[in-house]
Amino acid sequence: MPTFRLVLEYDGSDFEGWQTQRTAVADRAPRTVQGVLDAALRQITGVDARVHGAGRTDAGVHAEAQLAHVELETRLEAAELRRALNAVLPRDVAVLELRAVDADYHARRDARSKTYVYRLWTGETRSPLRARRALHVARSLDLEAMRRAAAAVVGTHDFASFRAAGGGPRTSVRTITRFDVVGEPGGELRLEVTGTGFLRHMVRNLVGTLLEVGQGKRPAESLPALIAACDRGRAGPTAPAHGLTLERVDDGQAG
Amino acid sequence: MPTFRLVLEYDGSDFEGWQTQRTAVADRAPRTVQGVLDAALRQITGVDARVHGAGRTDAGVHAEAQLAHVELETRLEAAELRRALNAVLPRDVAVLELRAVDADYHARRDARSKTYVYRLWTGETRSPLRARRALHVARSLDLEAMRRAAAAVVGTHDFASFRAAGGGPRTSVRTITRFDVVGEPGGELRLEVTGTGFLRHMVRNLVGTLLEVGQGKRPAESLPALIAACDRGRAGPTAPAHGLTLERVDDGQAG
Repeated sequence: MPTFRLVLEYDGSDFEGWQTQRTAVADRAPRTVQGVLDAALRQITGVDARVHGAGRTDAGVHAEAQLAHVELETRLEAAELRRALNAVLPRDVAVLELRAVDADYHARRDARSKTYVYRLWTGETRSPLRARRALHVARSLDLEAMRRAAAAVVGTHDFASFRAAGGGPRTSVRTITRFDVVGEPGGELRLEVTGTGFLRHMVRNLVGTLLEVGQGKRPAESLPALIAACDRGRAGPTAPAHGLTLERVDDGQAG
Repeated sequence: MPTFRLVLEYDGSDFEGWQTQRTAVADRAPRTVQGVLDAALRQITGVDARVHGAGRTDAGVHAEAQLAHVELETRLEAAELRRALNAVLPRDVAVLELRAVDADYHARRDARSKTYVYRLWTGETRSPLRARRALHVARSLDLEAMRRAAAAVVGTHDFASFRAAGGGPRTSVRTITRFDVVGEPGGELRLEVTGTGFLRHMVRNLVGTLLEVGQGKRPAESLPALIAACDRGRAGPTAPAHGLTLERVDDGQAG
């Protein structure tokens, strides 16, 4: 059975996240990116298939380039399948790339790194044209302090202080290779973070903590001790989902 | 009675344009930017007022900085009024600036020039994250031809070939001082046009014509004859509203 690799863009505003959830009442199922893709594939090919993403974005989180794969019995060629999908999919999700790959390709396991971007709108007034993709932070931020805090996060650490409450993988050790604060005060700021993997809510919890640093509520120099504490109760709040975008997933394959 | 000058930002997607229209059934009135502002002012001050814009943007057209004025009997200071408005207004419109001005200030009459930006997304695939603000044009465009056509439009001309069907002001002579095509092929292109004034649909009709030039359907060199013809039937189609943003209005007042 052919395996296809997909690169997907979506506006997360009207999705209950990536992952399809089991529900008692089928027609009350939350609208998910995975669910919409599976339904489009069924509509086009007539067979049931399940698209697997490299990461499970939360409700409201966007993607410029989510990576995914699907095993699918079809006689359609990749270009035809992509065209058919984009014709059928709703306007808040699109397939940017689609091609046949080796049967052992697996989007999540083959992902070497992911880059997330968290957007902040720092104008005095909230911005209607940026409201869907950026968090409005009216108070002026100390960007240099935020950059020092971000630099302290780079490296391999146990990120238990930044993991979501509840279950999750056994180890919370992850490696962050880059964490930049880009942009101009008063305009749009981008917190860009690249890592080999992320715990659930980890990026949003890091952003919430960096915002407290930027607002002078927490010194940048406290980050190493916060990481070492492995205590979720000591980090900042989870930043809202709508500011977050999965920017790209690197699986070592070009295009 | 004090007069206030306002600078407004709005996402036009869910508005039936700027201007409030008379309707037989009041609760069926279309949702307009003017109507939402007037209602917010009434809610805050308890008195009826009418906000006057520098230009009447069509349904679906956005504004980064629409200019407006309102005469309003209120004891609130400008900063208080602005804060109250932004608290009351829906999330797709905001007041960026508000201050008291001379009683003879008039946003439309005092506007010296307006700048509109029309956004094109020229990626191969439609972009869900750009779908609200940019028109998707998959076909590759000849940017140099579009620039030659845009340059031919700059100047003082009778723009009857680009006016909306139906009535309108007596003269269709307008002056365009700048018309630039900015951006990279395959990404976002911005058609930026500044002029002393524009006829209804004029920018969108110019964009529709430039798109035909970019797609090789019409030579750039035909623009002078098209302008001289003063015949709406000879210009290109009206480009969709959602790609258009009123970027700024210059009334000679800073801030």
